[in-house]
Amino acid sequence: MQKIESIKECGGYLNRYTHRSAVNNCEMTFSVYLPPQAEAGPVPALYWLSGLTCNDDNARTKAGAQRYATEHGIAIVFPDTSPRGDDVADEADRYDLGKGAGFYVTATEAPYSANYNMYEYVTDELPALLEAELPLLAGIKSVSGHSMGGHGALICALKNPDGYRSVSAFSPICNPINCCWGKGCFTAYLGRDESTWGDYDATELVKNGARVSNILIDSGLADEFYDEGQLLPENLKAACDAVGQPLELRLQAGYDHSYHFIASFIGEHIAYHAAALKAG
Amino acid sequence: MQKIESIKECGGYLNRYTHRSAVNNCEMTFSVYLPPQAEAGPVPALYWLSGLTCNDDNARTKAGAQRYATEHGIAIVFPDTSPRGDDVADEADRYDLGKGAGFYVTATEAPYSANYNMYEYVTDELPALLEAELPLLAGIKSVSGHSMGGHGALICALKNPDGYRSVSAFSPICNPINCCWGKGCFTAYLGRDESTWGDYDATELVKNGARVSNILIDSGLADEFYDEGQLLPENLKAACDAVGQPLELRLQAGYDHSYHFIASFIGEHIAYHAAALKAG
Repeated sequence: MQKIESIKECGGYLNRYTHRSAVNNCEMTFSVYLPPQAEAGPVPALYWLSGLTCNDDNARTKAGAQRYATEHGIAIVFPDTSPRGDDVADEADRYDLGKGAGFYVTATEAPYSANYNMYEYVTDELPALLEAELPLLAGIKSVSGHSMGGHGALICALKNPDGYRSVSAFSPICNPINCCWGKGCFTAYLGRDESTWGDYDATELVKNGARVSNILIDSGLADEFYDEGQLLPENLKAACDAVGQPLELRLQAGYDHSYHFIASFIGEHIAYHAAALKAG
Repeated sequence: MQKIESIKECGGYLNRYTHRSAVNNCEMTFSVYLPPQAEAGPVPALYWLSGLTCNDDNARTKAGAQRYATEHGIAIVFPDTSPRGDDVADEADRYDLGKGAGFYVTATEAPYSANYNMYEYVTDELPALLEAELPLLAGIKSVSGHSMGGHGALICALKNPDGYRSVSAFSPICNPINCCWGKGCFTAYLGRDESTWGDYDATELVKNGARVSNILIDSGLADEFYDEGQLLPENLKAACDAVGQPLELRLQAGYDHSYHFIASFIGEHIAYHAAALKAG
């Protein structure tokens, strides 16, 4: 991996890197915020998964997370949201399929299966690379994200309960097999056989026995995509309640889907993850 | 004025408005963050002046100021950086002259004099409008800004010592008559007679007797525009030292000119202004 940018922020460094991803079969760009504590030794990491249309820059610029990362001494990893490059399949006229819309799955359908393997990328390839190359504690990681990335955070944790110390999400897509965004991407990436889709659906995973110690979700009640039925937190809540999976679902009055909502509560989420990351 | 957007953030509302500016002779857009305390009664206001190429959106999205505004119970006003519209003179191929580069002066040269009256706009027309229309305490205001907007903040306060409770700046252009950005804009807006320029130059104003109770400045030592000689904080410091004008100039090692720098110290600046705004 090659460092292409380094910006000092809150006493640490917001670095940007490129590398050749084997699982996505393309050049990828990502950012990592290393707090000042990383100069003295390895620190735990929070992986932040962004939403539709985003790349690694949106959250690092707009969420206001870095000051809390410094306060708690944790790194934040900002992956991109899909494979990139001229050779990567895309739907240029759509924001919700193709580049910028990887949906954190391992695609099985051509042409997407050649590159769209974001699930393996964020859960395996990227952590292995970063724990080898940066001052990050091996295996001590948590995951959060927004919207499509909130879905990503939920499935990463539910499918790897020992791989993440904690999971939270902002405005997550909680039941993608039952919303337009999810149906469109899952059809393209996983194929028309819906029996495979549940493996990347947080609500279905909980129904089928996946468990984590807790799930923290903030979602806004003035969110247009909540109103459209793209997020469906009530479906995840019903599934969790039915099986006793702990879920702290906070439906926040007046808040929308934007980074202004994330910025309002990111401090609480980072404190939540820091407590888990630093637990004995 | 017309409210065109309202986004809940940190318990308050980030609102965007348009209105017809008499002094700029065009339609203007600005944003105001009203903290939750404004629902109970009027609050003091911090005016934030942005830099070259910005509009009212950059700082409200990237500075991370709103959480501190809520913490201290102050409003933040985000004006645009120039007049706007198809009828407004511009240099379309330049980022440092014309639209997005109003430099907070009252232009005297055609064609700019028809619209480029940002000094009167931010010191007079906009505060009068907002104090009449929003829950803001009349006359209780402070000013800060970044780069060109840091210059703006300094001259607004130095030219109106009773109009602002406090002034601070990030990476300000401290001596525009001696840097390329300033010379270009002052020539276009004020004319070739340099004898008029000092009235909009913080360093010259201090030399010529302007005084405020204190000036707080943060500027990065890894700032490319500092290296280019666009900012010249040393000239302002020399002028302040020569006459005993209090100046807290913090040259921050490793920091650049970006909003990541602002986000690193905005909390300290807002606490500084809040103390002045709430003083008896």
